[in-house]
Amino acid sequence: MLTGMQKVRVHNISMSVDGFMAGPDQSLENPLGVGGESLHDWVFATRSGRHMIGQEGGDTGLDEDFFVAGVTGIGATVIGRNMFGPIRGPWTGDWNGWWGDEPPYHHPVFVLTHQARAPLEMAGGTTFHFVTDGPEAALQQALAAAGGEDVRIGGGASTIRQYLRRALIDELHVAIAPVLLGTGERLFADKTEMSGYSCTRLVSSPAAAHMVFTRQA
Amino acid sequence: MLTGMQKVRVHNISMSVDGFMAGPDQSLENPLGVGGESLHDWVFATRSGRHMIGQEGGDTGLDEDFFVAGVTGIGATVIGRNMFGPIRGPWTGDWNGWWGDEPPYHHPVFVLTHQARAPLEMAGGTTFHFVTDGPEAALQQALAAAGGEDVRIGGGASTIRQYLRRALIDELHVAIAPVLLGTGERLFADKTEMSGYSCTRLVSSPAAAHMVFTRQA
Repeated sequence: MLTGMQKVRVHNISMSVDGFMAGPDQSLENPLGVGGESLHDWVFATRSGRHMIGQEGGDTGLDEDFFVAGVTGIGATVIGRNMFGPIRGPWTGDWNGWWGDEPPYHHPVFVLTHQARAPLEMAGGTTFHFVTDGPEAALQQALAAAGGEDVRIGGGASTIRQYLRRALIDELHVAIAPVLLGTGERLFADKTEMSGYSCTRLVSSPAAAHMVFTRQA
Repeated sequence: MLTGMQKVRVHNISMSVDGFMAGPDQSLENPLGVGGESLHDWVFATRSGRHMIGQEGGDTGLDEDFFVAGVTGIGATVIGRNMFGPIRGPWTGDWNGWWGDEPPYHHPVFVLTHQARAPLEMAGGTTFHFVTDGPEAALQQALAAAGGEDVRIGGGASTIRQYLRRALIDELHVAIAPVLLGTGERLFADKTEMSGYSCTRLVSSPAAAHMVFTRQA
């Protein structure tokens, strides 16, 4: 794939110390699964993480720096359908994502789905595009739409793993939270998906251990 | 259990980022399982870790401090049979542990086993005691033999989990190495075993993320 200097990046993936990206029983009430919120405590303690949910205050420092890196220099995002919403099968009703009228992306977002749907333009610069012809096509469209900036693969676990499997991700940042979920969706369920990657950075705050894995040339 | 001021501690448990304490196919040639050695790179980069295996040099700093904490103030150790050796069933031959004539314990070591065996005195102060009446009995004996110092639960995963399940561990230090093993023995296979514990320290070197879990009163 010709990506020029554009990178495909994964950021701020919170994982429990027992390896889960989300708790069990994801639902409208618990989009991150039961107990999944605690994975993200490190985010909502940062200034930018709090700002994202309309709250004041918050810390600067390492966690803030990682959080901000995940929204800097990104011109488009690809997400899986489950990350867009809890609806399965054909689109019904007027579900417009988890994020209200003004989603925090502010750029084109490509949603992997088997169900066609017209693009959905939201306030603040976010337009959701529904891509039915697979992950490579979605990434191509995202790279083209990113205005020369990088593309972020937003998640969830199965979406990230689809791209890892194809070696299409350049950089993967995981934040390990010191909590246990017991069950849920694993990010690292198949070692071979990570075989081309090495850890190039490992640092911690008291709230999360940050690991950056980079694809080796 | 009356432990007075003595603590029951777990230290320097290396875990892969996908959650395994040892690789698959543990054997005489691969006591840590295939690929398991890489979990311990952080240990063998430290001064004390290198000294333990008869090598010079090595780094001081955070990893060294954690490694040394695991051998400081410990008067006795409890280990599972698999950590003592690869033999299953009745004792045969003259297997005296993985560590040669002078094991690095230098204190009494209680080996959990179903097969009785006379105590085995090694050079340098280590005596292996083979305990056939269960983990509580082994811990009682270790606490009594520790001369007022703490007891370390040495491993492997199933032994640590037996004690976690009984809430008999006061402090658990896990070092997460940024490598994947893909399969093997999981430390955190059951969330309920850790339900009484909180992470009280999280720090990283470039080689490992160190988490300390402490039992809450």
